[in-house]
Amino acid sequence: MDTDLVIEDVRLTPILVADPPLLNTQGVHQPYTPRLIVEVETRGGVTGVGETYGDGKYLDPAGALARALPGRAVTDLNGLFALADEVCGDSRPAGDREADLRVDAGGLRGVQSAGKTRLSVVSAFEVACLDALGKTLGLPVHALLGGKVRSAVEYSAYLFYRWAHHPQDGERDDWGAALDPAGIVAQARRFADTYGFTSFKLKGGVFPPDQEIAAIRALAEAFPGHPLRLDPNGAWSVPTSLYVADQLGGFLEYLEDPTSGTESMAAVSAATDVPLATNMCVTTLAEVPEAFATDAVQIVLSDHHYWGGLHRTRELAALCRTFGVGLSMHSNTHLGISLAAMTHVAATVPDLAYACDSHYPWQTEDVITERHAFTDGRLTVSDAPGLGVELDRDRLAALHRRWLTDDGTHRERDDAAAMRRGDPEWVTPVIPRW
Amino acid sequence: MDTDLVIEDVRLTPILVADPPLLNTQGVHQPYTPRLIVEVETRGGVTGVGETYGDGKYLDPAGALARALPGRAVTDLNGLFALADEVCGDSRPAGDREADLRVDAGGLRGVQSAGKTRLSVVSAFEVACLDALGKTLGLPVHALLGGKVRSAVEYSAYLFYRWAHHPQDGERDDWGAALDPAGIVAQARRFADTYGFTSFKLKGGVFPPDQEIAAIRALAEAFPGHPLRLDPNGAWSVPTSLYVADQLGGFLEYLEDPTSGTESMAAVSAATDVPLATNMCVTTLAEVPEAFATDAVQIVLSDHHYWGGLHRTRELAALCRTFGVGLSMHSNTHLGISLAAMTHVAATVPDLAYACDSHYPWQTEDVITERHAFTDGRLTVSDAPGLGVELDRDRLAALHRRWLTDDGTHRERDDAAAMRRGDPEWVTPVIPRW
Repeated sequence: MDTDLVIEDVRLTPILVADPPLLNTQGVHQPYTPRLIVEVETRGGVTGVGETYGDGKYLDPAGALARALPGRAVTDLNGLFALADEVCGDSRPAGDREADLRVDAGGLRGVQSAGKTRLSVVSAFEVACLDALGKTLGLPVHALLGGKVRSAVEYSAYLFYRWAHHPQDGERDDWGAALDPAGIVAQARRFADTYGFTSFKLKGGVFPPDQEIAAIRALAEAFPGHPLRLDPNGAWSVPTSLYVADQLGGFLEYLEDPTSGTESMAAVSAATDVPLATNMCVTTLAEVPEAFATDAVQIVLSDHHYWGGLHRTRELAALCRTFGVGLSMHSNTHLGISLAAMTHVAATVPDLAYACDSHYPWQTEDVITERHAFTDGRLTVSDAPGLGVELDRDRLAALHRRWLTDDGTHRERDDAAAMRRGDPEWVTPVIPRW
Repeated sequence: MDTDLVIEDVRLTPILVADPPLLNTQGVHQPYTPRLIVEVETRGGVTGVGETYGDGKYLDPAGALARALPGRAVTDLNGLFALADEVCGDSRPAGDREADLRVDAGGLRGVQSAGKTRLSVVSAFEVACLDALGKTLGLPVHALLGGKVRSAVEYSAYLFYRWAHHPQDGERDDWGAALDPAGIVAQARRFADTYGFTSFKLKGGVFPPDQEIAAIRALAEAFPGHPLRLDPNGAWSVPTSLYVADQLGGFLEYLEDPTSGTESMAAVSAATDVPLATNMCVTTLAEVPEAFATDAVQIVLSDHHYWGGLHRTRELAALCRTFGVGLSMHSNTHLGISLAAMTHVAATVPDLAYACDSHYPWQTEDVITERHAFTDGRLTVSDAPGLGVELDRDRLAALHRRWLTDDGTHRERDDAAAMRRGDPEWVTPVIPRW
């Protein structure tokens, strides 16, 4: 093996990134949200970058993995999983632990477990290794994944109910509040005008279903024939889900996670023709068989942070193709490194029939020198070596300083706690909320 | 994209390779069997090699694909499938054609179709591109697939009933006939002594089941505790399969394709605890859902020639992992190029719990300069660039001359026709044969 490809050093930089007051069924996005930037430097002097969640529970396993990597090759990606199982504190593979069975019903990521956390950590290292490998070889990441099958990847507008400003601190923007159908349509219009998005997804579960039904209808009227999606993050009961499906059937491209859990999703699916998408009840390989066998979902929203990287995302795509299940892509708050990774892997998957989600337009801060620019709702797939992004070390240092000097309010993302800063009476809703 | 990686030329060389008189339920291996050697040469002057079936039905699509490749990059692997669909004469994707539904019940590959043929053709081009890419970059093929997770791959001894010599022509060897339990045990002993194999697979479906049961029992007595397998290529009825399973349950690691078709396999599976393996009823993604849903097979024998290359083989591995189905590797008559490809991809798959099959020890001829050598039943995974094999152009030319000067007897593999040259009364058995 070429010694240029051996890992010399790994740097982890936790940061806090500005996030607007976007509402969801749990509460509201914090003014600053934690992310972790991973840098893998080779003996050849090349640095690859990756990005993942930055809460405390991700930092500990990330530290363990970072310590274990020097001396290994950046090509050694299949081996990262066993290594993470070995060094990250729990030697049992993901899915085998009792903790893996614990349902964090109120969370936005479905069932939480140490195994899933570890896969999210691995994803950033895998992406960083691919970036370093590509830069060393002069090849774009998509070429390391078997090559692109499209030259641009389509994204959808990610609409949120939101406040004009955070109640106490945080950065300011000029989007204003969006708390009713007119506000959502105005937001969609700005997204369409600015970025050219033609698909629209509304984050729901915030207001009683009839208000969100009215918002989707307003979107359908403002953008006739455009694909529309509604995602209440599992906030509804099965009957409520079916009521919404019945009310919106003709307008929706799909309904995303209307209700929580595979069993409830299957019950909804059995009683409506509206396609159901998920990034909550199918988030690991272990959750696939039951969901597919019961036809609980018709579209899986992949997320390389969840699944353990870009190779694993391609495996998920193969699973979906095999079982006739659609594929699209989920997004949580993320920066330009992850958007580059998402775009590279999406470019390699033949059957991507739905525009991908991305929070990116909401993120005004970044750690790369040149922000991604959407044109006609699409990102051009980079043919530059690696991910095709360059780390802005000054920005990275500034966002790290924010993390270092934070009083502890923002280092753990907690949308309910953020909500209580505006509404002290707020309690995390019991699911189903409606 | 680095122009060094652009394909300048593609060369196809059909050859005839010596094959011993190995018996199966269809008949006997021909004295010479057709293979196709694919060479992909880049503008950088690097040549990658691949190998696949060489019958006429593979040569036509291979020619079309070879003409379409120059100007594309060797990294463009995901795009090979749509390209093959486009240029190989039938624009509908595999699985969508009526021809794909035609069951070639007597064949050894399960259902035959133009789509499957095309995937087998693509596999050789994908491997050749990976070899060229690896040689250009200085990376072994396994590193292009995410890296090896083991440094050696275990293979099993592939035992055959056989005659001492072909009845009319062909090369001679010193293995002698093996037509009864003692002959099979002697063959196994020589395999174990020469190559160190510790798992043994007997190609069955040749003699009435009781004779093959006796052979397995003789192997179990000679090699107590060693994994044993029996593969009659679907020759038995469901009751016969269950009878054999009952007789051999305690001795078998698995029973391979005892009966034909997913439905019959599921019926056998439901009534026995002996694990069932297949390379006949699960040979494409389209065949996976029914087979897995009905628990028709517990082990899928992958074959990169069937599935369309090494990336697709890894996707199959992910499918099996997801559904708790075991994975091993099938082999048909092949040379050292394909054995190298098999070893590279097998090295990257984490959950390979069974020794892989290979006919290779039966092949006395090859087109590479240095033959693979089994040690303790294993092949060391090469870390040399590409596949780690070098084409022997003199040998290739000699085997191509044999193909050119053949009178038409051997250019299409037909085990029944070969059988009739020894036994003019032979007719292809109706399945189930017993």
